Amino acid sequence: MTFSFEIIHRSSESHARLGKIHTPHGCVETPVLIPVGTQATVKSLTPEELCSLGVQIILGNTYHLYLRPGHDVIGKLGGLHRFMHWDRPILTDSGGYQVFSLAKLRKISDEGVTFQSHLDGSSHLLTPEKAIEIQEVLGSDIMMCLDECTPYPATHAVCQASLELSIAWAKRCKESHHADRGALFGIVQGGMFQDLRAQGVSALTDIGFDGYALGGLSVGEPKAAMLDISAFTLPLLPSSFPRYVMGVGAPEDLVELVSLGTDMFDCVIPTRNARNGQLFVSAGTINICNAQYRDDEGPIEEGCSCYTCRSYSRAYLRHLFMAKELLAYRLNTIHNIHYFMTLMSKMREAIRQGRFDLFKRGFYAQRSR
Amino acid sequence: MTFSFEIIHRSSESHARLGKIHTPHGCVETPVLIPVGTQATVKSLTPEELCSLGVQIILGNTYHLYLRPGHDVIGKLGGLHRFMHWDRPILTDSGGYQVFSLAKLRKISDEGVTFQSHLDGSSHLLTPEKAIEIQEVLGSDIMMCLDECTPYPATHAVCQASLELSIAWAKRCKESHHADRGALFGIVQGGMFQDLRAQGVSALTDIGFDGYALGGLSVGEPKAAMLDISAFTLPLLPSSFPRYVMGVGAPEDLVELVSLGTDMFDCVIPTRNARNGQLFVSAGTINICNAQYRDDEGPIEEGCSCYTCRSYSRAYLRHLFMAKELLAYRLNTIHNIHYFMTLMSKMREAIRQGRFDLFKRGFYAQRSR
Repeated sequence: MTFSFEIIHRSSESHARLGKIHTPHGCVETPVLIPVGTQATVKSLTPEELCSLGVQIILGNTYHLYLRPGHDVIGKLGGLHRFMHWDRPILTDSGGYQVFSLAKLRKISDEGVTFQSHLDGSSHLLTPEKAIEIQEVLGSDIMMCLDECTPYPATHAVCQASLELSIAWAKRCKESHHADRGALFGIVQGGMFQDLRAQGVSALTDIGFDGYALGGLSVGEPKAAMLDISAFTLPLLPSSFPRYVMGVGAPEDLVELVSLGTDMFDCVIPTRNARNGQLFVSAGTINICNAQYRDDEGPIEEGCSCYTCRSYSRAYLRHLFMAKELLAYRLNTIHNIHYFMTLMSKMREAIRQGRFDLFKRGFYAQRSR
Repeated sequence: MTFSFEIIHRSSESHARLGKIHTPHGCVETPVLIPVGTQATVKSLTPEELCSLGVQIILGNTYHLYLRPGHDVIGKLGGLHRFMHWDRPILTDSGGYQVFSLAKLRKISDEGVTFQSHLDGSSHLLTPEKAIEIQEVLGSDIMMCLDECTPYPATHAVCQASLELSIAWAKRCKESHHADRGALFGIVQGGMFQDLRAQGVSALTDIGFDGYALGGLSVGEPKAAMLDISAFTLPLLPSSFPRYVMGVGAPEDLVELVSLGTDMFDCVIPTRNARNGQLFVSAGTINICNAQYRDDEGPIEEGCSCYTCRSYSRAYLRHLFMAKELLAYRLNTIHNIHYFMTLMSKMREAIRQGRFDLFKRGFYAQRSR
């Protein structure tokens, strides 16, 4: 079965919509948050645990997998799904973002970007064609075009030049992409400038992709700027294709962006913050290393049905975390992923039942308690 | 139900015996290897995983738990079982070994040992009475007497003085131990000297304990010396009580010592070596970081029924290990614990069926392939 997207229900109170993405590895209900499995693993968890937490799709990082163990190795072993023992859909990024955030000595030309590996200093050239080749070898269900992640802040001229480069690369990605492989999404750049974002949407929809993403967000800009430019750009995207906001988000960002019509998100917050001891609860977050939890026999959140909350006290979780025990990262990750998957599931249910505004008011009411 | 030990079957070909230990938290079939859960967790695994791997009993380290989170905290939260969500038996050591191997600025007197915490340098006094008090507050099913772990090599005079101190401390442990709490085991010291080991056995059996352990082994002595002194000492121990060799062992040591009549072992080898990439297979060990496994699609061991071998290739495990991914330590630990639990289970079955010698020959035949 090839890629398709259907909209099941549209909210009458907002731009929120309930949808379903079909891929060769099964369906994904949207709006969906995609946990990040950078190096062919969502840190500390097994695929079985991810499934039981309701994770429908994960993200693999092309940059990391290309450098280690190498897409050739993964391809030889039957692709990323088989390699990591995960049979649900996988979305891969293009590697572009990591080249700009992790690699050293970058040099950008029209051809592509030359960079040094953060692992061993070896030199590599990533072109639009290479980014697609790697993702196809990985066997990705949803691939992303190579783009330049425009930094923040940046002048209009810088953003414009960057946008034009990303558009040129998107064309080459589309040309080198094999239609019988996974879907291919375009990424709209343009910084915080409305005219550039509009220009990006127009150019990418002219090329034609299976879905459209907003890139260059969560790169240091104020939250209001991120929401403003998203609110401006999302309605410009064709309504019948999936809309994906990359690198977002915090719970309140997910609620706002779903209400603006976003279908997909990916974010390291659930997993990375868990490993730093920050745990999500309906009222906000708690930091498990806080001394007040030393002999607290309650769970992270009363009433939470996750394995961690059903089995362990805050005191035990604090002890594991202070002792840097491996189990700490795992139990914290289970709770946070459960929190985010439940949040997304509640939003889908609220859209289905036509009460998304009510949900949103309830969400903020819990936070302000 | 209180503590008891029954012998179910004695091997006619060796001193090996099949037994059952009854504790307030359930039964343990012997011979048994006890995985080490130093800081109230067997590193990287959940209690449910340990159960499904056939782990019957785990060891908690009194020294670590006393320092962090503190036995008072664990006691307040209902004891170690409830704290760590483990309802099968727990054996605790006395803290003595860690004071001698981890703590700084030790000062030994007849009263006890003063030491500085390896965590924050704070000063503490561990006495025989204190060691029992901590273990009772933890709610241990099997407690160990405070002893001085005699170093290797050591002169006869040093070993004799150390043995006498350990015997004096054992008496005080017995006196301060409450009979309605967990069982209490004595520890025979005496270095590599037969007369001292015999003297230790005699003194401890005069005091009277629920079981007897050999201490001061695996402290740097040659393997032959460890086996020789064990072969000498084990038959001196009263046959109707559990015999426990502490800190051992490697698979071949377990086989030899079971054949000499040992009922219990504890060892960090399965878990620590897993985290270092050393994986146990019937022919010996493999190191997963070896480059030959880069694109090896086979499991750690063909035919192994553990979750890791059923689900992942050597190539994937090598990738996770090289990338220092948390999942690496977990999957490796699952395999190694499975290996050791299966080895012990096979030995118990061989004793039951009167073919322990046959088992032993098969074990060595696989190794020499």
